[in-house]
Amino acid sequence: MNSRSSSFSFPTPRLQQRPSFSARLSSAVSLEQGSAAAASGVAEHQIDEEIEEIKRYEDFTTIDWVQDAAKEQIRRKTRRKETAGFFERGGHAGWRYRLWESYEAAQGWIVVTLIGAAIGVNAAFLNIITEWLSDVKLGYCKTAFYLNESFCCWGEDNGCEDWHRWSSLPPINYLLYIMFATIFALTSANLVRSFAPYAAGSGISEIKCIIAGFVMKGFLGFWTLVIKSVALPLAIASGLSVGKEGPSVHYAVCTGNVISRLFEKYKRNASKTREILSACAAAGVAVAFGSPIGGVLFSLEEMSSYFPLKTMWRSYFCALVATAVLAAMNPFRTGQLVMFQVHYDRSWHFFEVLFYIIIGIFGGLYGAFVIKWNLRAQAFRKKYLTKYAILEATLLATGTAIICYPNMFLRIDMTESMEILFLECEGAEDYNGLCDRGNRWKMVISLTFATILRIFLVIISYGCKVPAGIFVPSMAIGASFGRTVGILVQALHEAYPTSVFFAACEPDVPCITPGTYAFLGAGAALSGIMHITVSVVVIMFELTGALTYILPTMIVVGVTKAVSELFGKGGIADRMIWFNGFPFLDNKEDHTFGVPVSKVMTSDVVALPTTGLTMKNLEKLLREDKYQGFPIVEDRTSKILVGYIGRTELRYAIDRVKRERSINPNAVCYFTPLTTLNPSAPTTPATPATTFDGMASSSVDFSRFIDPTPVTAHPRLPLETVMELFRKIGPRVILIQYHGKLTGLVTVKDCLKYQFKVEASENPRDDRHIIESQEQLWGVIKKSATWISDKVHHVSRGRIRIGGSIEELATSPPRGAGPTSHMMDGTEDIDDGVELEAR
Amino acid sequence: MNSRSSSFSFPTPRLQQRPSFSARLSSAVSLEQGSAAAASGVAEHQIDEEIEEIKRYEDFTTIDWVQDAAKEQIRRKTRRKETAGFFERGGHAGWRYRLWESYEAAQGWIVVTLIGAAIGVNAAFLNIITEWLSDVKLGYCKTAFYLNESFCCWGEDNGCEDWHRWSSLPPINYLLYIMFATIFALTSANLVRSFAPYAAGSGISEIKCIIAGFVMKGFLGFWTLVIKSVALPLAIASGLSVGKEGPSVHYAVCTGNVISRLFEKYKRNASKTREILSACAAAGVAVAFGSPIGGVLFSLEEMSSYFPLKTMWRSYFCALVATAVLAAMNPFRTGQLVMFQVHYDRSWHFFEVLFYIIIGIFGGLYGAFVIKWNLRAQAFRKKYLTKYAILEATLLATGTAIICYPNMFLRIDMTESMEILFLECEGAEDYNGLCDRGNRWKMVISLTFATILRIFLVIISYGCKVPAGIFVPSMAIGASFGRTVGILVQALHEAYPTSVFFAACEPDVPCITPGTYAFLGAGAALSGIMHITVSVVVIMFELTGALTYILPTMIVVGVTKAVSELFGKGGIADRMIWFNGFPFLDNKEDHTFGVPVSKVMTSDVVALPTTGLTMKNLEKLLREDKYQGFPIVEDRTSKILVGYIGRTELRYAIDRVKRERSINPNAVCYFTPLTTLNPSAPTTPATPATTFDGMASSSVDFSRFIDPTPVTAHPRLPLETVMELFRKIGPRVILIQYHGKLTGLVTVKDCLKYQFKVEASENPRDDRHIIESQEQLWGVIKKSATWISDKVHHVSRGRIRIGGSIEELATSPPRGAGPTSHMMDGTEDIDDGVELEAR
Repeated sequence: MNSRSSSFSFPTPRLQQRPSFSARLSSAVSLEQGSAAAASGVAEHQIDEEIEEIKRYEDFTTIDWVQDAAKEQIRRKTRRKETAGFFERGGHAGWRYRLWESYEAAQGWIVVTLIGAAIGVNAAFLNIITEWLSDVKLGYCKTAFYLNESFCCWGEDNGCEDWHRWSSLPPINYLLYIMFATIFALTSANLVRSFAPYAAGSGISEIKCIIAGFVMKGFLGFWTLVIKSVALPLAIASGLSVGKEGPSVHYAVCTGNVISRLFEKYKRNASKTREILSACAAAGVAVAFGSPIGGVLFSLEEMSSYFPLKTMWRSYFCALVATAVLAAMNPFRTGQLVMFQVHYDRSWHFFEVLFYIIIGIFGGLYGAFVIKWNLRAQAFRKKYLTKYAILEATLLATGTAIICYPNMFLRIDMTESMEILFLECEGAEDYNGLCDRGNRWKMVISLTFATILRIFLVIISYGCKVPAGIFVPSMAIGASFGRTVGILVQALHEAYPTSVFFAACEPDVPCITPGTYAFLGAGAALSGIMHITVSVVVIMFELTGALTYILPTMIVVGVTKAVSELFGKGGIADRMIWFNGFPFLDNKEDHTFGVPVSKVMTSDVVALPTTGLTMKNLEKLLREDKYQGFPIVEDRTSKILVGYIGRTELRYAIDRVKRERSINPNAVCYFTPLTTLNPSAPTTPATPATTFDGMASSSVDFSRFIDPTPVTAHPRLPLETVMELFRKIGPRVILIQYHGKLTGLVTVKDCLKYQFKVEASENPRDDRHIIESQEQLWGVIKKSATWISDKVHHVSRGRIRIGGSIEELATSPPRGAGPTSHMMDGTEDIDDGVELEAR
Repeated sequence: MNSRSSSFSFPTPRLQQRPSFSARLSSAVSLEQGSAAAASGVAEHQIDEEIEEIKRYEDFTTIDWVQDAAKEQIRRKTRRKETAGFFERGGHAGWRYRLWESYEAAQGWIVVTLIGAAIGVNAAFLNIITEWLSDVKLGYCKTAFYLNESFCCWGEDNGCEDWHRWSSLPPINYLLYIMFATIFALTSANLVRSFAPYAAGSGISEIKCIIAGFVMKGFLGFWTLVIKSVALPLAIASGLSVGKEGPSVHYAVCTGNVISRLFEKYKRNASKTREILSACAAAGVAVAFGSPIGGVLFSLEEMSSYFPLKTMWRSYFCALVATAVLAAMNPFRTGQLVMFQVHYDRSWHFFEVLFYIIIGIFGGLYGAFVIKWNLRAQAFRKKYLTKYAILEATLLATGTAIICYPNMFLRIDMTESMEILFLECEGAEDYNGLCDRGNRWKMVISLTFATILRIFLVIISYGCKVPAGIFVPSMAIGASFGRTVGILVQALHEAYPTSVFFAACEPDVPCITPGTYAFLGAGAALSGIMHITVSVVVIMFELTGALTYILPTMIVVGVTKAVSELFGKGGIADRMIWFNGFPFLDNKEDHTFGVPVSKVMTSDVVALPTTGLTMKNLEKLLREDKYQGFPIVEDRTSKILVGYIGRTELRYAIDRVKRERSINPNAVCYFTPLTTLNPSAPTTPATPATTFDGMASSSVDFSRFIDPTPVTAHPRLPLETVMELFRKIGPRVILIQYHGKLTGLVTVKDCLKYQFKVEASENPRDDRHIIESQEQLWGVIKKSATWISDKVHHVSRGRIRIGGSIEELATSPPRGAGPTSHMMDGTEDIDDGVELEAR
C-alpha cells in the first residue's frame, strides 16, 4: 500500500453557524433533487452535457457503476421533464412525442438487431474466406479460383476432377503448403502489428474485464474490428494451432461497441453498453459454433460478472438475430450453421460410462497441463520475444506446417478434422480409411501422435501475436484422443464379444461408436481448458442434436470439472487475467481471509476539506496525477466524511470555472452543498450561486460536482463482505467510515493485492529454476539464430542478411520485467496505466 | 409506516474516559477476532453452539444473509482451530484428520448425490402411479390390475385385448369416469387439508421467496414432501387441469431440505442450504420434463434471486444425478425420460416464420389473459371459498370430468394429448384420425373447443387446494392451438400449392408439419405464462432434439416475450408473490423512483443505548414483540450508531444469563464491546468479563451478541441503490446513518410498500365493479347451493343432507379481508407473521 502523506492541512475556518442536525437531514434529499433545485436557473440540457463531459473515463481505469447508475437517473429525470414540456407545448406535437417515445423504447432492440445482423454477415464472410484460404494451401479450383474444395466439387464426395492439387509431385505440394502457411502468418502478424495491436490473441480475458468495468480504449474500436476480421482467416488458414471462437467473440463485441456508439443512449451510459457487450459475446459464440443458446450460456457462465435477466434476454435476441442471418446466408450451402454438425443414430450403453470417465479425466488433465505450460510460454514470450512478434508468428506457422503436413489429421483444417473424427462410420462415409477395421492400429498411432503434437503446438501457439482462439484446437485435441479411446474400446469389444462386460451389446449390430467418443472428448477438452460446464453441454448438444447423448456429455463434463477443480484457480481466461494483472475480482472463487477491511485499506488518505483549499492547491494536486479521486471531509481535524470527488470531475470543474471567468489562484474552493441548500444559515461565507457567473472570484463552489453519497463501510467489516460490495454494487472506491469519520479508503486493487499476498504466503513458490531454464532456452535460441544468420550470410557471401531483427535478437538484452509483472500488448507504459488505477 | 415512539430515554451515564479515536480504531478489528479474543477462556465449541441457538429463524421472517455469512466465517475459523489442535495432538491421528477433511470437502457432493437420487426415484414412482391412476378411469388390465394401458398392451398400438373398458355401455363408462375423478380429487384435497396445507398449489412462488431468504417453517418439511408426493398423482389423475411440473419442483426442494437437514453443515448455514435448494429446483424441473439442462436454466431464470456459478454447478450435478437415476429406472420402459419425446425429420421453411409469429402472439396473449383472470379467481377463492377447499376441489374435478369426457383431446391425460398433438404423422402413427385429411375440419373444431375450454378450466383450477402446476396445462393449450394453426396452414397449402408464398415447398413431399406447430405452440404458451425464455427453448429442445427447430422455437418465444412485456409485471409466479404479499424484491424489474431512501425509511426508531437500560426494560421491550431487532446507539442524545442486535439474539442472551445466574431486574445492561476490548480505559463501570460467570449481578454485558457492523446507508442514497443493496447483499434491515448518527431504518417491506404506493398512484384502479361482480357471483353460488341442498333434502325426504358445509356455505358470512390482503393457506394468523416481518 502506498504511503500517502496528508499534505493538505490548511487553517480551515469552520462554518460559523453549523446548521442544526434536523435542518441538515431535512435538506438531505436525494442527489438529483438537491442538484436540480440548485440548478433551477440552469437549463436542463446543460446538466446533460456536463454528465457527458465528466463521464469520459480515462484509459485503464475502472467504471464506477454506482455513479454511472446515479447519473443515468439524473439524465432520465431531466429528459422526462424536457419531454413533458415538449408534450405540453401543443397538442399537435402529440404524435411526434409518441413517435419519439416509442423510438426511445425500441432503441435497444433496434441496436441489438443491427448488431446481430452485422455479426451474422461478418461471420458468414469469415467462414467462406477461411475455408477458401485453408484449401488454397492444398490446391485450387480449375473452374473458378475463388471456390474452395467443397464448393468446387459440389455434390461429390472425396474430391473431384475440377479441384487440382498444385503439383503432382508430393514434395512440391509440401513446399507450397509451407510457403502458403508462412505467407499467411506473416501477413496476419504484420497487419496486427501495424494497425491494431489489440487484435492479437483471443481477447476473451480482456473482454471479461471490460464487461466488468475496466476501460481499455481502442480494444473494442473500429480498427481492431477490421484487423481482427481480416487477420483471423489468415491466421487460421496459416495452419497455426489456433481457433476462431475466441476472436469471434472479440470481433462480435467490437461490432457491438462500434455500432452502439452511434446511438446517444449507449454512448453515454456504461451500464447499458455493458448489456450490449454481453449480448455481443453471446452472439459471437453463437455464430462461431452455430449454437445460439450455447452462446447465451457462455456469455453468462464465462464472460459476464453481472448478468441480470434483462441482459440474458438481450443476449438471447442478439444471438437469435446473428444465427438467423448466418442461417439465411448459409455459408456452407448445407443448411447447417457449422461445419461439423453430426447426427448419431445409435444409443449408448451404461457400461460405456467407464470410458466416459476416462475421457473426462483426460479433459481435466489436458486443461491443467496446457494452462500451466501455456502460462510459462507466455511468460517467456513476454520476457524475450516482445520485439520479435512477427518473426515468432511466422516461424511458428512454418514449423507447424513442416511437422503437421505428414499427419493426415493435422494437415487439414481443425474443424474439418473434427468433422471426420465425429463420423459415425455408418454407410459409405469414410476418410482415408478411418472407418476401416484393417487400419485400426495405424489409426491409433496416427491419432496419438496427432494428440500429443497438437497439445505441444497449442501450448506454444496460443498467445502469439495473431488473432488466436483456443476453443477449436482444444476440441480437436479432445476429439483425436476420444477417437483413439473409441477405437480401442471397439477393438476390445471385438476381441471379447461374449464378455459379461459387453453383455448389453446386441449381437450383429455395431455396439461401440468411436465417433461418439471423439465427440465427448471434444466436449471434455473444451470444458477442461475453459472451466465451463453448462455451456459446453449445450454447445455440444446444439452441434449434434443427439438427444440421447446429453447424459454422457453431462457425465464427461462433470468428471472434467471435478478433475479441473483439483488444480483449481479457473480456466485459461481467468488465469490470463491474473497473469496480466487486470483489476478483476473473480466471482468464481470463495475466499476466507478472516480479516477486517481495516487491514487492507489505505489509511493515509489525501482528503479535501470542504473549505480552505485554494485553486492553486487543487491544481497542484491534480498535476501530481497520483489519485483517481479525493474524499471530501468537513475539516482536517474532525474528518467527518461529506462526499467524494473523482479526479475527472474535479478537473472538468476547474476547467469550466477557468473557461468562464478568470480565477485568482488564491480563490478559496468550497465543496459543501449545505450553504446553497440551507438559506437559514445566514453567515456562510460562500454566496449561494449555482453557476459560476456572478460569483466573487475569491471563492469557487464545487459542491455540484461532488458525490454526496459515496459507498462507505465500517472498518471492522470483513474483507469478504467488502469484496462482495465491489463485485455486486461496483463502486470504484469504498470509503471507510467510523462513526461518521473518514478513516481510510479501499479499492479493488488493494483487495487483490492482499489476496495475492495471502495466496503467495500459503503456497510459497520458488521460481528460480523456471527463470534459469528460461534463460537457458533463450541462450539456445540466440545461439541457433546467430548460427543460422552466420551460415546464411556466409553461404550467400554477405548478399543475404536475415532481417536485422535476428542480429538484434542475438545481441539485444531482453526486455520486460520478469514473469510476474504486467503484460498488455508489449508496450510497457500501459503498466503505469494499470498502476494508476490503484485509486 | 408505523409510528414508533422513542420510549426509552434513561439518564445515560457516559463512559467516563472515552478511549481516544486511534485506540478505538486499532481495537476495531474484525468481529470474530474481537469475540475470539474476548472468549479466550470459553471453549470454542460454545461459540458454535451459541451461533446455532441464535440462528433459529422465526417463522415468516427473512434471513439476514450478511449475518449468515459472518457467522459462517466465525464457525469456519473455530473449526479450523479445533481441527488444527486435533491434528497436532499426535501423528497417529493424521490419517483420521485427513479422512475427516476429505469427508468435509466432499460432503456437498455427497448430499447433492443423495438428494438427486432420491428425487429421481420419487419421480419414477410418481410417473408410474400417475399413469396407472389416469388409465384406471377408463378401464383396467385383465392380466394384472396394477398395470396401466401401455404396459398392459406392451408392444401393441392402439389398445389390445387385455385392456378392458369398464363397461361396454358408454354412459356407464362416462359415469365411472366422473366417479373416479371425484374420488381422486376428494382424496387429494382431504390429504392436503388434513396433513399438510402447504402441499396445496404449485409452490413455485413460495420457493422463490424461500430461496430469496424468507422463512416459512414446514413449507419444505417432511410431511409436505409425503403429502405432495401422494396427493399429486391423485390430483393429476382426477383430470383437473393441473400439471405436475410446479409440484415436482416443490417435492424436489422438500427432498433437498429434508435430506440436507441430516447434515450438520447444512442445518446451520442458510446460504449453503439455499445453494442446495436452488439445485433441487433444477432437479425437479429436470425430472418433470426429462430435461436436465432446461432444469438448470429454469432454476437460474425463474427460481433464484442469487445464482453464482457454484450454485449453477451444484444444480447441474443434482439435475444430472436425478435424470440419470430416472433414466436407469426407466419408468416408461421406452428408454425415454418423458412421455412426449418426439423427433421431427422434416425441416422448416422461411415463409413459415409468419405463422410462428402468430403462435408467438398467441402465447403472449394467453399468458396475459390467464394471469389476469386467474388472479381474480384467486381473489374470489380467498374471499369466499377458504372454508370449502375440499368441496371446491371435488366439485371442480366432477365438473371437469363431465365437460371434458366428450372431447377426445380433453378426455385423456394432458401429457398424452400433447404427445398426440406433436405427432409428425409420418408412417402409420395416428390417433382417432388426427392425421387423416378427411377429418380436418372436424379436428379444427374439436381442437378449438379444447383450447377454449382448457383455458377456462386452467383459470378456475390453478390455485385450488390440491397439488397443482400450470406448466403442462399451458403447454397442452398451446399445443392444441398450434395444431389448429398447423392444420389450417396445411389446408391453405393444399388449396393453393402453386402460390408464390409456398414456393419454397418441394412438390410431392409433405410441406407443412402440423405437429411442429403444436410443438411451438406449447413452447409459446409456457413462455407466456411463466415469462421465461431461454429455459423454454432448452426444455423444448431437450424434449425433441430437433436441432433444426431451435431457431423457430427461439423466434416464437421471442415474440411471446415481446407481447408479454407489453402487459408487463412478470409471470404468474411473480404475480402470485405480489398477490400474497411476500417480502420479495423482484430482480426482473427496473424502477426509477427518483427519491432518496430518507423518504421511505422509518425515522422513529427504538434504539438501545449502549448503557443505561435495565433488564426489566429489556424484557418489557421483548414482550411487546413488535420489532425484529434494535439498533444500538452510544447514547440517546448523540445517537452515534454502535451496532445492531436482533430480537432472537437478544432473547437468547437474556435467557442464557438467566439460566446461569439470578439477575436483579434492575441490573444495568451494556451493549458496548469497547470496555472489554480496551483495557487502557480503567474506570469503565462494567467488569471485563466475557462470560456471565463471576459478574456482579448488577450489570450484564451483552456486547458479544451485537453485530458491530450492520449495513448502513446515507440518507440521501437513492432508493434504487438501497433496493439493490437488499437484493444483492441481502441484509434484513439497513440502518440509515448520517455522519455517524442513526437517523432511520429501512426494511424490504418499507421499500415494497413505497413501490406499491407509487405503482398504485401511477395506475389508479377502481376495484369496485370487480368486488361487486364477485359479490354477485357468490350470491349465485350460494343460491344454487341452497337450492340443490333443499332439493336433495326434499327428494331424499331428509335422509340425505349434503354435508353441513353446504348449509354453512349458504349462511356463513364470507371470511378474509378483501382482495388486497395477504393470503397464505387460508389461516389468517399467518398474516400477522408477514406483518411482523416489517422489521
